[in-house]
Amino acid sequence: MKEALFVLIDEYADWEPALLAAGLRRGFGLWEPRYSVRTVAPGSSPVISIGGFRTMPDYTCDNAPDDFAALILIGGTDWFGSGAAAVLPLVRRAIAIDAVLGAICDASVFLGAHGFLNAVNHTSNGLGYLQEKAGAAYTGETIYRHDAPSVRDKKIVTANGAGFIDFAMDVLDALEAAPREKLDMFSTMYKQGLYPA
Amino acid sequence: MKEALFVLIDEYADWEPALLAAGLRRGFGLWEPRYSVRTVAPGSSPVISIGGFRTMPDYTCDNAPDDFAALILIGGTDWFGSGAAAVLPLVRRAIAIDAVLGAICDASVFLGAHGFLNAVNHTSNGLGYLQEKAGAAYTGETIYRHDAPSVRDKKIVTANGAGFIDFAMDVLDALEAAPREKLDMFSTMYKQGLYPA
Repeated sequence: MKEALFVLIDEYADWEPALLAAGLRRGFGLWEPRYSVRTVAPGSSPVISIGGFRTMPDYTCDNAPDDFAALILIGGTDWFGSGAAAVLPLVRRAIAIDAVLGAICDASVFLGAHGFLNAVNHTSNGLGYLQEKAGAAYTGETIYRHDAPSVRDKKIVTANGAGFIDFAMDVLDALEAAPREKLDMFSTMYKQGLYPA
Repeated sequence: MKEALFVLIDEYADWEPALLAAGLRRGFGLWEPRYSVRTVAPGSSPVISIGGFRTMPDYTCDNAPDDFAALILIGGTDWFGSGAAAVLPLVRRAIAIDAVLGAICDASVFLGAHGFLNAVNHTSNGLGYLQEKAGAAYTGETIYRHDAPSVRDKKIVTANGAGFIDFAMDVLDALEAAPREKLDMFSTMYKQGLYPA
């Protein structure tokens, strides 16, 4: 199975990777899983989530594999800190090998701040916020989508931090993890809050 | 700050604790947090989620504190295995000290299988499934709610595994973690998938 790498930084947003990782690794009983999930952090110590969970990373940014199916950057409160720079080589590698690249919440702002969102349709946690945080390296305002929880442009998926269900669906779709009708079932189920009886 | 204990067993469902833990510990910028979050597992080894994340528990069932504000049982694929029995003393303790007791997905079935759902309005992953798995100890079918993602009856909250947003709101409400209008804002935001611009 090819690996999907989830990049976690301190105070990462628990809900943002949750459905996507579970769908990739287990398929919710709706589809056969085709990917394994591995976590990556700047360092090897446990990463503490916003909710206070302590997650042991499988890799550091320095020893993550060169080949992977997807690189998923999870929002957190430290994407503008010094640790985040260690993630840049992985982002460049994802683009070089044509892997799926997903970024949600402040992680999408990190992509903007490093010039990765100027030629792809995208969204984030609001255009004003993205412009303020990303600064001059971001010039993608005409292709920013205001009305979508998540936006997919070929292999790049970006999302609002509250748009984690649509983000999961878009990344699963980009990875061809399941037929589209199964992804629709997944999305409907979790948005309505009920498993079919 | 009083502690909210989240009980995790192997292959726990990543999405089920995610918004609740984050809301308790950080408040989404909507309210001042009043609780700390601690994880509890039958053993001290990392617990692996359905999504493949490895979480280091803060306590084991044997050394968890006697005083806590809430005990939250998270769904997973091992609630009918031998490890789950270690959780029973914590459930009895929660009821004895009148703590909030939350159980979602197969963890609500675990409560049913040990006779805790026969006198409280409740829900689970479908009545037929609950009856099949819980067996003779469960006699609460007349007070089972079929149409609700989550059901709160005073201090006990039960939920369908897909109903994690409503479950979070009901537990936050039972803990008086935030004013009701802030909880409504939280719920609307995550169901619509967009942060306010």
